[in-house]
Amino acid sequence: MMKFLKPILIASVFVLSCLGVAQAKEATSAFWPDDAQLVISISMQFEATAQDQSDPGPFPPQEVGYPDTISPSWYQYGMNEGIPRLLDLWDKHDIKVTSHMVGRAVELNPELAKEVVQRGHEASGHGQTWTPQYSMSEEQERQSYIKSANIIEKVTGQRPVGFNAFWMRHSKNTLKILKELGFIYHIDDLSRDEPSLTPVGSDDIVVVPYTFRNNDIVRYTGSTAMTGKAYLQELKDEFDVLYKEGKQRRRMMSISAHDRLAGTPARVKALDDFITYAKQHKGVKFMRKDDIAKWMLSLDNVPKNQPRTFTEDL
Amino acid sequence: MMKFLKPILIASVFVLSCLGVAQAKEATSAFWPDDAQLVISISMQFEATAQDQSDPGPFPPQEVGYPDTISPSWYQYGMNEGIPRLLDLWDKHDIKVTSHMVGRAVELNPELAKEVVQRGHEASGHGQTWTPQYSMSEEQERQSYIKSANIIEKVTGQRPVGFNAFWMRHSKNTLKILKELGFIYHIDDLSRDEPSLTPVGSDDIVVVPYTFRNNDIVRYTGSTAMTGKAYLQELKDEFDVLYKEGKQRRRMMSISAHDRLAGTPARVKALDDFITYAKQHKGVKFMRKDDIAKWMLSLDNVPKNQPRTFTEDL
Amino acid sequence: MMKFLKPILIASVFVLSCLGVAQAKEATSAFWPDDAQLVISISMQFEATAQDQSDPGPFPPQEVGYPDTISPSWYQYGMNEGIPRLLDLWDKHDIKVTSHMVGRAVELNPELAKEVVQRGHEASGHGQTWTPQYSMSEEQERQSYIKSANIIEKVTGQRPVGFNAFWMRHSKNTLKILKELGFIYHIDDLSRDEPSLTPVGSDDIVVVPYTFRNNDIVRYTGSTAMTGKAYLQELKDEFDVLYKEGKQRRRMMSISAHDRLAGTPARVKALDDFITYAKQHKGVKFMRKDDIAKWMLSLDNVPKNQPRTFTEDL
Amino acid sequence: MMKFLKPILIASVFVLSCLGVAQAKEATSAFWPDDAQLVISISMQFEATAQDQSDPGPFPPQEVGYPDTISPSWYQYGMNEGIPRLLDLWDKHDIKVTSHMVGRAVELNPELAKEVVQRGHEASGHGQTWTPQYSMSEEQERQSYIKSANIIEKVTGQRPVGFNAFWMRHSKNTLKILKELGFIYHIDDLSRDEPSLTPVGSDDIVVVPYTFRNNDIVRYTGSTAMTGKAYLQELKDEFDVLYKEGKQRRRMMSISAHDRLAGTPARVKALDDFITYAKQHKGVKFMRKDDIAKWMLSLDNVPKNQPRTFTEDL
Repeated sequence: MMKFLKPILIASVFVLSCLGVAQAKEATSAFWPDDAQLVISISMQFEATAQDQSDPGPFPPQEVGYPDTISPSWYQYGMNEGIPRLLDLWDKHDIKVTSHMVGRAVELNPELAKEVVQRGHEASGHGQTWTPQYSMSEEQERQSYIKSANIIEKVTGQRPVGFNAFWMRHSKNTLKILKELGFIYHIDDLSRDEPSLTPVGSDDIVVVPYTFRNNDIVRYTGSTAMTGKAYLQELKDEFDVLYKEGKQRRRMMSISAHDRLAGTPARVKALDDFITYAKQHKGVKFMRKDDIAKWMLSLDNVPKNQPRTFTEDL
Repeated sequence: MMKFLKPILIASVFVLSCLGVAQAKEATSAFWPDDAQLVISISMQFEATAQDQSDPGPFPPQEVGYPDTISPSWYQYGMNEGIPRLLDLWDKHDIKVTSHMVGRAVELNPELAKEVVQRGHEASGHGQTWTPQYSMSEEQERQSYIKSANIIEKVTGQRPVGFNAFWMRHSKNTLKILKELGFIYHIDDLSRDEPSLTPVGSDDIVVVPYTFRNNDIVRYTGSTAMTGKAYLQELKDEFDVLYKEGKQRRRMMSISAHDRLAGTPARVKALDDFITYAKQHKGVKFMRKDDIAKWMLSLDNVPKNQPRTFTEDL
Repeated sequence: MMKFLKPILIASVFVLSCLGVAQAKEATSAFWPDDAQLVISISMQFEATAQDQSDPGPFPPQEVGYPDTISPSWYQYGMNEGIPRLLDLWDKHDIKVTSHMVGRAVELNPELAKEVVQRGHEASGHGQTWTPQYSMSEEQERQSYIKSANIIEKVTGQRPVGFNAFWMRHSKNTLKILKELGFIYHIDDLSRDEPSLTPVGSDDIVVVPYTFRNNDIVRYTGSTAMTGKAYLQELKDEFDVLYKEGKQRRRMMSISAHDRLAGTPARVKALDDFITYAKQHKGVKFMRKDDIAKWMLSLDNVPKNQPRTFTEDL
Repeated sequence: MMKFLKPILIASVFVLSCLGVAQAKEATSAFWPDDAQLVISISMQFEATAQDQSDPGPFPPQEVGYPDTISPSWYQYGMNEGIPRLLDLWDKHDIKVTSHMVGRAVELNPELAKEVVQRGHEASGHGQTWTPQYSMSEEQERQSYIKSANIIEKVTGQRPVGFNAFWMRHSKNTLKILKELGFIYHIDDLSRDEPSLTPVGSDDIVVVPYTFRNNDIVRYTGSTAMTGKAYLQELKDEFDVLYKEGKQRRRMMSISAHDRLAGTPARVKALDDFITYAKQHKGVKFMRKDDIAKWMLSLDNVPKNQPRTFTEDL
């Protein structure tokens, strides 16, 4: 069984949150660049067209032995319409995001991948294919990350320093390999509303937390599907609380946008309205995850997680 | 595995979307008839009463060996109440729609099918029965389309030129057969918010895209069921974004309405309110899909898809 | 396969709906008593405490061999809180409803069953237990209806004349047995927004249609669960459309309320608000289903369904 | 089969609810302390980090033989962010809640558990682990409750007097063991909107009812997931009805808040807004469940349930 971080830090956090407003304001200079009260970081998945036949999207699986002509067209929308529409949205608001790029999707859509980086966004790692990482051998996993990073760098000119695993699940080797290969952060940890550090050997890797709440693939699909307007409201409600907390603690809001999901018109409108709402508040800063990771590595007040341990029977 | 269209066209589209408003306005004359800024095309499925016993609608499957007296009555509602109510709605707003007609349903409800065409709507192909097309032999598939087209023509006086497959899934022969038989478009491709052309032999077939978003069978049933008011809001939000994009590009909004689903009172109200909302905007045009296909065939600036390829093992 | 009613009547209905307002208004005297424009009929299921162990309500099925102490308490709420609260709601608005009573639940809760009838509501048949009727032998089915009717009459003083089957599914003998035993209507047909007649031998049985839309067990449970406020909005939207149609045709709105589901506070509020809304409209009449059935039997302009036929292989 | 309480008490309750307002107001002095019109009791589950690997939260189960690195991080959020945020919320409104503590989670998070009690909340029993109680042998069950109570007392300084079982399901020995060990109430009965007494041997145990409606684990997860705003509206609607009923009867509103679910920002906002709404009404009192149980034990007008009976074949 996993060993969890014992909540030693929490007690001190409570103390901090009991400080008066005056002290807290002084303290924020250590929370974020530009004395920001809340940082919002958006993930844009660049992965459609690389999907497996085993993931037919919203469609019932096709019978074995027959072609499936509709699922690929549904995914293709992500590249034809989704990414372009999202890129225009980020430009409209002058914000930069992190694009988690599946290597194979970059190969299949090189012009668009290049455009993402040319318009100022981060190219981050998201595996070479849609194959899970947790069941790879150590060497398979290493080669897969190298290949994917090489492709992304070759096509976009930018080598990824961050990582997002398939379904966020790591093997016992994942963090070690990532560190070896020069990655400085991963996003596959949902335990905090702020970045943290996880020890890997004698060093640390930054956790820039992903989200399972403000996540289009969770909120817009399957049994919990909601409308764009409802998602917008959830984003606003989450923002309100984190923004207020941001006066006393380092707080970060993570949002995810998958090409073929968040890139549809009504959902782009929801994101557009949310960003407009957030920007009306003083001290809100949109950041790429690589910039967040670098900021964290420059500080000495970042929460630290227990090293990961794995039981023998796994 | 399928080969996808490489996004060569996308880059040029980006260039276009960066043009100033002045140029763009001049360009719209090539987008749609009457210089329309956005075209909305509604699909009305005419298929209830032809359903298989294997599809009990919202009910749990009946135990084998016993009659199911309730599912057929639920479907029958589509012909008793749904289609008549929808026809009145289209008349109220003076719009014409495309009716995807299952041949067997036309046979069982000839007066109503005829009425659909007499009131100005398009009779389009939707298979002879609810049997999937993708698993038919080439000859079965051909005969099925011929039979269905003959029945529709005999009953309604109109021969279909468009096609919608069961669950949108084609066999490797579907496009070839459709072209042979004089069909000029199909709707079973979700990759764009505008029509496109797919090569078939030395010719093209028009894709007038269907929708899995603005689709009553997706939004009102199963695990993602929503209220009429919520669906209305989604339609408005989608409209707002596509309408704005329509100034610079050819944009089309597709909406689907199944007899027994969209034809219930609260859902007809949602469609009524949406159409009223859309019509308050200048340059919005409602079109039948056959008219859209013919317009596309007259132009030389329509996006072109890669020819479909199928791997040997399928 | 079932034979469906061919839509011969629909064409004439269309003609009717094209008549001017003047004629239509004169005609409404034949639609409903008191020249009502719309009739609303509410079903209140009285069935909790008679549930099978195989239906644990919203809980995961209990492992075989162990007691389930929580599901029965959830059902018991229907008798402790649900029915009393609903009865107070009907009284508040001075409306009478149809209570579909499971015989066993009447035996287990005699004082409450009696109270339902004493407060002016209809005791209608809903099976003796939660066992499906469609798989009973003819004699089992007959004896079950006799036993249930006897118990309801003995406890409440009223003999039921209407019927609602388990999951609305009939055997091939159901209608014949119901007629034999003096039942005049059933509700297990969803094909129209108005009552109709189904031939049984040389006579007819009235269909007073139930609803799968305005139905708490559909809308508040399982994968399509919604809030009370959302359900209220759906009811209002449905009302608006049927009320308007009611000027030209006979229109009826059916609503269902199960003891432990609709009887919770927030959902009673939704019903309360809906009834208040409906009553603000002129010509809205709330009726018990037995009164509706009797009114239909006195008229000669009621839509007639095809006789039911069953294929041999069932 | 279970034997259910025959509704003998219900008839008298009806009589009570027919009394005029004047008498009823005089009667309220016996309903709740301080003549409260409605009592609201909030449950805060303290259980994350003690979860089984067999419950991966919102994630698909991990393949056997591989580690699952993401689910534990999702649970860990409950201790890192959820409980601290909820504690701040209770303080903001100066209300005290009941914390159902899993023994193992207390062991793993001792500082936080202690803080819960130090800030004035009740430490109540919720099993030693996430193992079901219903399938334990009598002695296993007894030892499990003793161990859990000892740990909670040792860490927090408070010995629990209340109990909540896994999925609310009891063995046939549960009530007897709870009484033996000095527990005075359990919450695992959903049959009323007010406390009641269940005979155990020659004595009674208080039922302080839990909720499956105003329950974050029901409303925010699985197939019925809703937004924070929608949940807020449901809470308000439920409140309105119970508050009004509270003039004539003893009424209680139960709300549940699980660490990692209700403790997210948007959901804390929903609770915050609800509590603000409720407190705007005169005579609303927030109570811990142990205080409710003690009050009930001091009265002689509490509804009494039938003793539990179990059939032999279980």
